[in-house]
Amino acid sequence: MTIASLLNPASVAIIGASENSDKIGGRPLRYLQEFGFQGEIYPINPSRQTVQGLVCFPSLDALPAVPETVIIAVAGESAIAAVEACAAAGVAAAIIMASGFGELGEDGKRTEAYMRTVAHQANMRLVGPNSQGLANFGNGAVLNFSTMFIESPPADGPVACISQSGAMSVVPYGLLRARGIGVRHVHATGNDCDVSVGELAAEVVQDPEVRLLLLYLETLADPEALARAAQVARERDVPIIALKSGRSEDGRRAASSHTGAIANSDRVVDAFFARNGIWRARGTQELVRATELYLQGWHPEGRNLAVISNSGATCVLAADAAEHAGLPLATFPKAIEAELQATLPSFASPRNPVDITAALLTDSTLFSKVLPTAGKDPNVDLFLIGIPVSGKGYDFPRFASDTSAFIRDRGKPVALAAPQSKVREAFSAQGVPVFETEDQAIDALAQFVDHQRLIQRARRTLPITLRPTSVGCSATLDESAALDYIEQTGVPVARHKLCHNAEEAIDFLAASSGSIVLKACSRHIPHKSDHGLVKLGIADADTLNVAFAELVTGIEQLGHRFDGILACEQIKGERELMIGGHIDPTFGAVVVIGDGGILVEAMPDNAVLLPPIDEGSVRDALRSLRIAPLFEGVRGQQALDSAAVTKVAQAVAELLASSVTDIQSVDINPLIVDATGAWAVDALIEVASTNETQDAKRPTITTK
Amino acid sequence: MTIASLLNPASVAIIGASENSDKIGGRPLRYLQEFGFQGEIYPINPSRQTVQGLVCFPSLDALPAVPETVIIAVAGESAIAAVEACAAAGVAAAIIMASGFGELGEDGKRTEAYMRTVAHQANMRLVGPNSQGLANFGNGAVLNFSTMFIESPPADGPVACISQSGAMSVVPYGLLRARGIGVRHVHATGNDCDVSVGELAAEVVQDPEVRLLLLYLETLADPEALARAAQVARERDVPIIALKSGRSEDGRRAASSHTGAIANSDRVVDAFFARNGIWRARGTQELVRATELYLQGWHPEGRNLAVISNSGATCVLAADAAEHAGLPLATFPKAIEAELQATLPSFASPRNPVDITAALLTDSTLFSKVLPTAGKDPNVDLFLIGIPVSGKGYDFPRFASDTSAFIRDRGKPVALAAPQSKVREAFSAQGVPVFETEDQAIDALAQFVDHQRLIQRARRTLPITLRPTSVGCSATLDESAALDYIEQTGVPVARHKLCHNAEEAIDFLAASSGSIVLKACSRHIPHKSDHGLVKLGIADADTLNVAFAELVTGIEQLGHRFDGILACEQIKGERELMIGGHIDPTFGAVVVIGDGGILVEAMPDNAVLLPPIDEGSVRDALRSLRIAPLFEGVRGQQALDSAAVTKVAQAVAELLASSVTDIQSVDINPLIVDATGAWAVDALIEVASTNETQDAKRPTITTK
Repeated sequence: MTIASLLNPASVAIIGASENSDKIGGRPLRYLQEFGFQGEIYPINPSRQTVQGLVCFPSLDALPAVPETVIIAVAGESAIAAVEACAAAGVAAAIIMASGFGELGEDGKRTEAYMRTVAHQANMRLVGPNSQGLANFGNGAVLNFSTMFIESPPADGPVACISQSGAMSVVPYGLLRARGIGVRHVHATGNDCDVSVGELAAEVVQDPEVRLLLLYLETLADPEALARAAQVARERDVPIIALKSGRSEDGRRAASSHTGAIANSDRVVDAFFARNGIWRARGTQELVRATELYLQGWHPEGRNLAVISNSGATCVLAADAAEHAGLPLATFPKAIEAELQATLPSFASPRNPVDITAALLTDSTLFSKVLPTAGKDPNVDLFLIGIPVSGKGYDFPRFASDTSAFIRDRGKPVALAAPQSKVREAFSAQGVPVFETEDQAIDALAQFVDHQRLIQRARRTLPITLRPTSVGCSATLDESAALDYIEQTGVPVARHKLCHNAEEAIDFLAASSGSIVLKACSRHIPHKSDHGLVKLGIADADTLNVAFAELVTGIEQLGHRFDGILACEQIKGERELMIGGHIDPTFGAVVVIGDGGILVEAMPDNAVLLPPIDEGSVRDALRSLRIAPLFEGVRGQQALDSAAVTKVAQAVAELLASSVTDIQSVDINPLIVDATGAWAVDALIEVASTNETQDAKRPTITTK
Repeated sequence: MTIASLLNPASVAIIGASENSDKIGGRPLRYLQEFGFQGEIYPINPSRQTVQGLVCFPSLDALPAVPETVIIAVAGESAIAAVEACAAAGVAAAIIMASGFGELGEDGKRTEAYMRTVAHQANMRLVGPNSQGLANFGNGAVLNFSTMFIESPPADGPVACISQSGAMSVVPYGLLRARGIGVRHVHATGNDCDVSVGELAAEVVQDPEVRLLLLYLETLADPEALARAAQVARERDVPIIALKSGRSEDGRRAASSHTGAIANSDRVVDAFFARNGIWRARGTQELVRATELYLQGWHPEGRNLAVISNSGATCVLAADAAEHAGLPLATFPKAIEAELQATLPSFASPRNPVDITAALLTDSTLFSKVLPTAGKDPNVDLFLIGIPVSGKGYDFPRFASDTSAFIRDRGKPVALAAPQSKVREAFSAQGVPVFETEDQAIDALAQFVDHQRLIQRARRTLPITLRPTSVGCSATLDESAALDYIEQTGVPVARHKLCHNAEEAIDFLAASSGSIVLKACSRHIPHKSDHGLVKLGIADADTLNVAFAELVTGIEQLGHRFDGILACEQIKGERELMIGGHIDPTFGAVVVIGDGGILVEAMPDNAVLLPPIDEGSVRDALRSLRIAPLFEGVRGQQALDSAAVTKVAQAVAELLASSVTDIQSVDINPLIVDATGAWAVDALIEVASTNETQDAKRPTITTK
C-alpha cells in the first residue's frame, strides 16, 4: 500500500462518526461533503442510522466494501481496537486522531509501536496518533478536523503544508489564505508513529500542481525519507522551506568532546537541510514571507539588485537593507546610465538606486521608461520598486501594469515595497509580489535567491551518507594512541614519542630539529591545558628534566593513571585550526571544521559538514568562518593551505564512516596550518565501550 | 523667536497660495481649514482676490498683521526673495518648501547659507528648503503638502514623527494610522539649512501629549541639539526611536589608522544613539513594530518572559524566538507550578512555556486562571500569549477581556501573537498589543525592554562631550615618539629605546630581563608587520646584529626615511588588545576598544565609545566583544585585567579631548594584557599638519 491512499482515497470510513460537525468525528464528514470529495464516505457509529445525512454503519465489518482509508476518531483502547480492526479488514491506511499516546511518555510509545506492528503485518500504513488529519483541497479528501478551514475558507493552489503539529499546519495556511494564495495540501501528522513528515513530503512533491512545500518539524526522526523528498523536489523544481523548532533545547547537551559540544544536533539539522537544498526558516514569518516570490517560477542567475523609487529616502534605505542582506547593488553600464540620464529630470540620479524623484508626479510615463531601461542591464538579477507615497496624481495602476508587462517580458524577479495598501493591491492584482516596506521586500528577495543557490548547490553535491547509529558509553584513547591512529588514516601528524622517563625524552629532543613540547599523557585528562600539563618550547636537557618532573608530579596530584609523557616536535604555523567529527544518533558521521586552540567553545568559529565531503563543501565551510580571510592571505601573510585542510577533513570523515561502530568522536585540535600544509599536534578520540570505566580498546581500521 | 512658532503659530501666511488644493501652495490651505486650525490664515497671491474661500493678499506687506509663521510655496529666486521679505517684515519662522537648493550641490548650499544669514539677522528661523512641511494635528497647524493626510485621515494621538525626508515622515504615519494609532506630529524638515531635526525634536518632546518620538535622519549634522532633545525625552519618559539611513555608504571610508577604519561614522552614530538612550532602528519595520508596547507606559524591571499558549508548537517556537532575541524564559517557583498543575489537565505542562493544550476548547476559564497564576511570579517581567488557532468553541473575546484585566491589575507587558485577524482585533479592542506571529511579538518585546534598559543606562551616564572639529591633513609620528607620548599620558608602555646602531641595541638587551623585539622605526611605515620589519624574540648579541642589519636593509629597500631601530622589551601576556581613538568631524573624540593584533580590520571584534568614558561603559563594551569570556577567565586562564584596560581607554579619551587640535588619531596595538595589567608595545599617532609632506610636530600636552 502506498502513501497515495492517504492523499487520494477512493473511499473513506470514519470510525466514531458524529452528527455534530464541531466534534472531531463530525468535522471531517462535513469537510468531505463540503469540499467536493468524490469518493465513497462511510460513517461508522453503532448508535446511529444516519450521520450528517449519510447512511451510518455499526462497524467496519458492516460496510458494503473495504474502505481504502479510515479516520479513527475514537480514543484510547477504542483507537487501538480500531487499528486492529482496520488491519484485519485490509484497509490501506488509517489516520489516528486521538492524542494521549507517545507524547505522554514511554507507555504511549510502546502502544504506538504495537499499533505500527499490527498495521505493518497487514501492509497498512498509519498516520498519527495525535494527528489533526490530512487535507487535500485538490480532490476534497479533507480527512481533517481543524477549525481553520471554516475560519479561512480554502482555495486550491500551488502550496503544500506538512506539519507534525496541528496548529502549525494551519498557521501558514491561514497566513497565506489571508494573502489570497491558494493552498492544496494541509497535513498534520502528529506523533509520526509510522508515516513520517518526510515520507508524506516525498509523496506530496510529486503532485504536479504543487510548486512550494512548507514543513513544520519538531523532531527529525526520518531524515532519509526527507532527503528522498528533497531530491524529488529538486528534480521537480519545488522549493522546500522547513521550520524546525526546538533550537533552544538542543543547544544545551553536554558533551566531553569539543566536536560533540559544538555540533549539537540543531547545527547538524542546519547542515542537513542546507545539504539537501531545504531552506531552514528561523520562525513562522520566514516560513511564509517570500511565498509570492517562490510561486513565480523565477530562476535568477545572480543576486545583483536594482532599486527604483520615487523617494530618495527609500533608495538609501533599500541600499542599507540590501547591504545587510548581502545583495549587491548592480553598477549600471555607462550606456544605461546615459539612457536613464536622458529620461530623468536633470536633478535625478541615473545611478543605482534610481531615484525618479517627485517628477513622477508630473510625468507618469517616467516609471515605464526607467524600469525597462534598467532592465536592459544583463547584470541586474533582481528589482525592487519602492513607492513609499502615492496619492492623487500618481498613476499607480499604470505603474502596476507596466511592472507586470516588464516581468512577462524579462522573467526577472521584481518586488514592490509600498506601505499604502491600495498601492500594494494594485500591484498584487497584476501578479507582482508586494511588501509593506523595503526591508521586508529585500529580506524576502535575499531568502529567495539564497535558497535558489542552495538548491543549485544541492543538485551538484553528492547525497549525504546517512548512517544513524545508537551512541552508547564511550572511553577515551590516550593522546599518543590517538595521534598514531589518525596518522594511519593519512593525517599529517607532528613527530612524537610516548616517553616513560626523561632519558627517552632527551633522546627525542636530540633527534629534533627545533624545540619540543612535553605533554602529560592520560586518557582520563582530555583537556590537558586546563591543568597546566603542557610544557612548550623545550630546547635543552636541563629545562626538559625540570618540565618532565613537573608533569609527572602534576598527574600524580590529579590522581590519574600515568600513561607516559608525550614528547612532540613543536611546529610553528600561522594558525591553530580544529577539525573534529562525531557520530550523531540521527545523522551518523558529522564533521566540524573551524578555528582551533583552547577557546573553541568559549569563542566558537566553525562550520558543520555532513560526509561525503568534497572540496567545494570545505571551501564553502571555510568561507563561512570568521577566519575566512586567512585562507585568502591577509596583511602580507600567505594564504593558509586550504587543500591540506580539506584532506584532513576528508580523512576524519572517512575514519568515522569506516568505523562507526567503534569511534564516537575525534578532535584534532590544534591542527597547525600554514601556507604549506597542516599538521595535527593533539588529538582526542572517543571509542565505544560497553563499560565506561573499562579501558578503551583500540578500534580496528577497516579502510586505508 | 522660538521653534514653538512653527508648531503652534497664531497666524500663518502662504506665499504662493493656490486655489488648487492639489498644488503645493494649495494643499496646506486646504489642510489648515480642514483639520481645525484656529489661528489666522493669510493666503498671498498677487493674481487673486480669494483663494479657497479666504481673502487673498497681494503681498506680505499688504497683510493686516505680521504673520507669526510663513509657508514659502514659491520656488527659486522667488523663494529667496520671500525669505528676505519675511525677515524684513518681522516674521518669526518660515518654511521653504521648494527644492533645488543644497541637495543639488555647492551653489545651493551657498544660497541656503545666505538665506540662513538673512533670517538670523532678523531673529527669524527657517525650515527647509526642500521641506514637505510641518503638521501638528493637536491644533490643526498642518503647514504641509503631503498627500498622505488625504489617503490616511489623521487622528490626534501620542506619536510624533520627525524626518528630513518627506516620504519617511509620512510612511511611519501611514503604517501607524493603518493600525489605528493616533499621530500628533508629522514634520519633514528637508535640507535643515537652519532648524534641524534635533532642534525640532527638542521642542516636540515637550508637548505633554507626545509619548513616543520617531525620527528619520539622513545626516546627523546637529548632534548637540539631538542630545538635548534626548535628555528632555528621558526626563519626560518619551522614548525616541531613530532610523538613520546611509549605513552602507559610511562603511567605505578609507583611513590610514585602524581606529579610523573601524570607527567609521556609522558606528559612531550607533554609539551616539546608544549613549543618549535612543533606539536605532535597522529599517522601517523596526521603527514602527513595537509602537503599541511603547504606548502602554510600561516599565518592566527585567527581561524574563512567560509564554502561555493553547498550542505546544507555539510554545516551542516562542522559546526559540526568545532565545534568539535574548529574552530568558522565567522558571516558575514550585508553588506556582503546583497551582498551574492543579488548574491544568494532567497531560499539560505547568512549566514555562505553559501549554494549556486544546483543553481550552472544553474549558474557557482555563485561560483566565493560568494567566494570573503565572502572573504571581515576581520574576516574570513579560508575557506572551500565543493563540495560533481559534475557531468555534474558543471564547477569545473572553480571553481578550481577561488579558486586559490582568494588564490593568499587574501593569506588566503582555503581547498577543495570533495569525487570525479576528482574534487580534478582539485583543486590540481591549488595548492589548497584538502581532501576527510569536517571532514578531518577541522581537518587539525584546526591542522594547532593551530600549528601556538603554534609556535607564543613559540616565546614569554622563552626557557625551561633543567636540566636533574639522579634520585637515595629518602626519604620523614615528613609533618611538608615539610610545613616549602615550607613556606621558599615563599608559603603561613596554621599556623601549630608539637605537641608531646595533651597539645601542645590544646595551638595551643587556639591561633587559628577557628577550627583546627590534622594529624598524619610520613615520612613513605605519604597519611594519606587513613589510617584515619586526624581529621578535632576540635573546643574544649575534642574533641581534643579524636582525638589526636586516631591518636597516629592509627600510632602505622601501626607500623610506630611517628614524632608527626601536628596541623594545618583549612582553608576554595572555592576549593582544587594541585601544585607539580618533577625532570624528561630527562627534569629536571617539575611542575604539577591542581584540588586537594585525587582523583588527580583517577579523574585527571591537566596540566604539564616546568620551567621557566611565568604568561601566568600558565594562559594557568588553561584554559586547567576542573575546568577552577572556575577561571572565576561561579554560583555567585567569581573567584579563579589565581595570587596567579601562585606565588605558580613559587615558586615550583624555589625550584626544585635551589636544583635539593636534592629535587626529591614536592606535595602541597591540596592548598586551594579562591578569595583572596592560602594556602598550606599539603605538601609532597621527597629528594635524598643514602640509602632508612636512614632518609632524610633536603635539603639546595640555593636561596630565
